[in-house]
Amino acid sequence: MHAILRRFIDETTSCTISDEEFLYIEKGFTEKSIKKKQFLLHEGTVCKYMAFIVKGAMRQYSIDGNGNEHIVRFGMEGWWMSDRESFLMLTPSKYNIEALEDCDLLVATNEQLAMVKEQSLLFLKMSHILDARHSIASQNRIQASISYTAEQKVLELMKVYPLFLKRFSQAMLASYLGLSPETFSRIRKQIAANNTNRQV
Amino acid sequence: MHAILRRFIDETTSCTISDEEFLYIEKGFTEKSIKKKQFLLHEGTVCKYMAFIVKGAMRQYSIDGNGNEHIVRFGMEGWWMSDRESFLMLTPSKYNIEALEDCDLLVATNEQLAMVKEQSLLFLKMSHILDARHSIASQNRIQASISYTAEQKVLELMKVYPLFLKRFSQAMLASYLGLSPETFSRIRKQIAANNTNRQV
Repeated sequence: MHAILRRFIDETTSCTISDEEFLYIEKGFTEKSIKKKQFLLHEGTVCKYMAFIVKGAMRQYSIDGNGNEHIVRFGMEGWWMSDRESFLMLTPSKYNIEALEDCDLLVATNEQLAMVKEQSLLFLKMSHILDARHSIASQNRIQASISYTAEQKVLELMKVYPLFLKRFSQAMLASYLGLSPETFSRIRKQIAANNTNRQV
Repeated sequence: MHAILRRFIDETTSCTISDEEFLYIEKGFTEKSIKKKQFLLHEGTVCKYMAFIVKGAMRQYSIDGNGNEHIVRFGMEGWWMSDRESFLMLTPSKYNIEALEDCDLLVATNEQLAMVKEQSLLFLKMSHILDARHSIASQNRIQASISYTAEQKVLELMKVYPLFLKRFSQAMLASYLGLSPETFSRIRKQIAANNTNRQV
């Protein structure tokens, strides 16, 4: 599993990590497999791991007072999952992180991750590149959430994350966009009908 | 103005920067004053600066096809303003950044900022701490936007950013939350009435 993380670091940093430096990373990350519907994090507990997804898909979600689930994040191969606030501050999380498929992960605790960042400059560089990307993606999602119509939100999702539509249910995608399942389904049908009309 | 940035770096990193190291930062950041209603960034242009606000307040917003403004970010003393995507990728920005009051700024270009990060380890450390904080704040805002009712959004804003309510107009705060000005105003009145009733 570590070879996939190694390739990810190389690709993200556009560098080639040496065997010597990669040893520190191998030591810092532990293999962990969790089955579909099992949890990496339960609401109310401290998030213990930063997880790199080698195989599988996950979702991070909160549950409101009425029992409704709200998905703030999906993850799949090559993505990182954690509740960063809880992981860094050691505070109880308001999120659950659940495997949507059987998952193979590489996980590090807060101490292990700090150690890896101290020992591997390339891992540190990768973290900063990911932070910048994450910051840009979050900004775009915030902008979409306050300014887009429901239809624009669905179209943007189809454009930016086409894989989500193949991999996650309509109910989950609706939750991720903050739409009702009915609205999401209606818009998807409209878009499909418009595309068919255009092709005719 | 640089003394305020120096204090900010010390406070954020819980360290004391040496005179020698701070010289690199002084060289990297230029003083820039802009008047109320002037712009640091215009939509369609590349964001040239990362700006530290020494005095004043700003907003970052986009304009949709119907001419409506959507505020994605406010900034005031001790905050940083930039469209990071445009600043890092050198792509045309979809945002405007406007001074809401007369502003004193310290600004650095992409090259200057990269140089400062190379020359000052403490500045680099500060950047990573800010990245982590920004990531957590963004996550919380995304969660609120997809799962909170309009009333919960207003209450959360009052709790997390009480200064915003003193400093920015109701119309702007409504835009920031993705609510109509009417909804925002109605909820503020309801909350005030509930508080009065509780006090009686």
